[in-house]
Amino acid sequence: MGLYKSSEVKNNQGDHVAANFKPCAIGDLQTPSLLLDPRRMARNIVRMRQQITRLGVGFRPHVKTAKCLEVISLLSDNGALPVTVSTLQEAEQLAQVGYRDILYAVGMIPNKIARVQALRDRGVDIKVIVDNPEAAAALSAAAVVSDNPVPVLIEIDSDGHRAGVKPDDVEALRTTAANLSGGVCLGGVLTHAGGSYSSHSQDEIRGYAERETRAVVDAAEALRKGGYQVDIVSLGSTPSVLFSDDMTGVTEARAGVFVFFDLVMAGLQVCDVDDIAISVLASVGTVQADRGRFIVDAGWTAMSRDRGTSVQKVDQGYGLVCDIAGRPIPDLIMTEANQEHGVLALREGSTQSLPDLGIGDLVRILPNHACATAGQHAAYSVIDEEQGGVVDRWSRFGGW
Amino acid sequence: MGLYKSSEVKNNQGDHVAANFKPCAIGDLQTPSLLLDPRRMARNIVRMRQQITRLGVGFRPHVKTAKCLEVISLLSDNGALPVTVSTLQEAEQLAQVGYRDILYAVGMIPNKIARVQALRDRGVDIKVIVDNPEAAAALSAAAVVSDNPVPVLIEIDSDGHRAGVKPDDVEALRTTAANLSGGVCLGGVLTHAGGSYSSHSQDEIRGYAERETRAVVDAAEALRKGGYQVDIVSLGSTPSVLFSDDMTGVTEARAGVFVFFDLVMAGLQVCDVDDIAISVLASVGTVQADRGRFIVDAGWTAMSRDRGTSVQKVDQGYGLVCDIAGRPIPDLIMTEANQEHGVLALREGSTQSLPDLGIGDLVRILPNHACATAGQHAAYSVIDEEQGGVVDRWSRFGGW
Repeated sequence: MGLYKSSEVKNNQGDHVAANFKPCAIGDLQTPSLLLDPRRMARNIVRMRQQITRLGVGFRPHVKTAKCLEVISLLSDNGALPVTVSTLQEAEQLAQVGYRDILYAVGMIPNKIARVQALRDRGVDIKVIVDNPEAAAALSAAAVVSDNPVPVLIEIDSDGHRAGVKPDDVEALRTTAANLSGGVCLGGVLTHAGGSYSSHSQDEIRGYAERETRAVVDAAEALRKGGYQVDIVSLGSTPSVLFSDDMTGVTEARAGVFVFFDLVMAGLQVCDVDDIAISVLASVGTVQADRGRFIVDAGWTAMSRDRGTSVQKVDQGYGLVCDIAGRPIPDLIMTEANQEHGVLALREGSTQSLPDLGIGDLVRILPNHACATAGQHAAYSVIDEEQGGVVDRWSRFGGW
Repeated sequence: MGLYKSSEVKNNQGDHVAANFKPCAIGDLQTPSLLLDPRRMARNIVRMRQQITRLGVGFRPHVKTAKCLEVISLLSDNGALPVTVSTLQEAEQLAQVGYRDILYAVGMIPNKIARVQALRDRGVDIKVIVDNPEAAAALSAAAVVSDNPVPVLIEIDSDGHRAGVKPDDVEALRTTAANLSGGVCLGGVLTHAGGSYSSHSQDEIRGYAERETRAVVDAAEALRKGGYQVDIVSLGSTPSVLFSDDMTGVTEARAGVFVFFDLVMAGLQVCDVDDIAISVLASVGTVQADRGRFIVDAGWTAMSRDRGTSVQKVDQGYGLVCDIAGRPIPDLIMTEANQEHGVLALREGSTQSLPDLGIGDLVRILPNHACATAGQHAAYSVIDEEQGGVVDRWSRFGGW
């Protein structure tokens, strides 16, 4: 898989990041910096694509983790695949560079419909979701009547995690569908097994995957029996898609975080720590051997405040520390995060001795949650692990 | 206090935010949006300036909370005051628009010295800090010998919170000072009572304030007795500065978060909830009356994952919910945060009934930690509370 290279990439602030990029050694980067290992990422993408092929469904990758044109190009087979977005800003950015099949998979707020209809008028096949009959009615009331209506997917609640119509609530399903009119129309059904992120075993994830498929297929069937046409039957989360055995009746799967993976996914046994493709490069500023710790120049502004592994079997603090080559340093984690400082120490109960790190030494810290940590940075420094160098810089976009 | 208005403001991504701004009603903003109430902010600045005047010390406001030229202009009396920064990016941004007295108050990593010396060569009186003798030696080794050396403040540990030389460790103090040579020189001493943020009473904060003053004054004295010239004696944190009674021997106080305040500061009784000057505007997307909750379009990407009040007497979840006019809705907090969704519910044990909110209604959510929540946004929408309108848009800068 070749890497998409742009001679000049703009982020949503009009930043010409790549234009000014010069290859350098990892040690020449200012810290903290967000590193991306494209080989690991490519491996993760291949793994997901093979699973999708095995399941025989369509693939609509979620771009919310990467928020980066180069990564999205790889995820989407250079734009051949449809995509999922979590903000209209992402949709508008992608539309601008030619993406045409976009699903905005966050419950639609009526006053955002003008932006959606504007994209549709520009030839973008954008779709949105609603999670209850009242939201469908409010959306229909807000949308301008059009002969190019916005397809709306009804969100189905497959696991009680957040929102959606229960798959067996046939009346609510059909009322929601009936309430879509004027500038919007029924496009299908969708679910997201968000609860799968708090699984404790691979079997538990398989359970989520089965319920996810059943919920969305049942809902589609109930709507079809009511006389509605259901084109899209969409589901997904990285754990449930990777552990699904059967998606009969499903038209497309969505997943996002798999592109980088993270410690939460490793804790779920969805990936290995060695699959995690992003890390934060930090410098040791202070050695406090008497207190059994180091202070680095990466705090929560660099790592985020995400503590996703705190509810898992192995708590990784604010991140698992690796050496400059990306190899985990046994039991060394970021135990505290201030704004611009992180404290590195051995995890509680460790029998390891404190590693030999000195002032100015570089470490790489793996994130709890890839979306949250990447979101703290304006760009990825793309590294070539074999050569130990930084080969490119890819901007991220943000905002809503 | 008048508001600094720029016809065109660039953030660090080259974004021309203000250039495209058109005044509008709050209800016309896309959600989520970060709101800034300049009247509350002005009141907070006046309060801090009065306290500083009463204490008879200099003031070096910290810009890390705001990261915004217009706010920093107000904080610094239109550039007349020196400033404190938490990243070299902030220093470079401020130097570009004319700030000349800048303290970079994060333990200096040797390989960043070239950027500091470049600023100094451009006429910026930038100072840095080190927190131990080895760091001082490493910094001296990394700096280019210069007849315009970078003043270095020795960080003093006044509360065991993070780092610094103990104020009574005279040998370590003098060794640190002695290790500064070549391109760097001794500029003074500094401390930060970071521990004050976890106080449980105003008396406890006063204790931190007293220890902060004593530590830094004692350290300065020990150095002077050793023959060293100590020009700057710097201390500060918002709680300790506001509750200090006496700063004899101190030359300057630093504080940052007071400019906006937040729920953590309100929980410490350092401010009232009504003093909090920023909030996140969000739209209700889903009403789940049967589950006693609402879902809004502001998740952790809008609020951050900061849960600072979780260790306080009153846990405010991911934020305290106000109506569109900024009045708190009794006991309504954000209890869960997903990436783009927040769940609003009554706090545990509340006897209130669920407020009457419908799809599309707007709420304003006060943050646990102003630095963290503001850091999730590219700009502030500046509101006029009396007119209910958005009167300006001010960019933030980010990065390192």
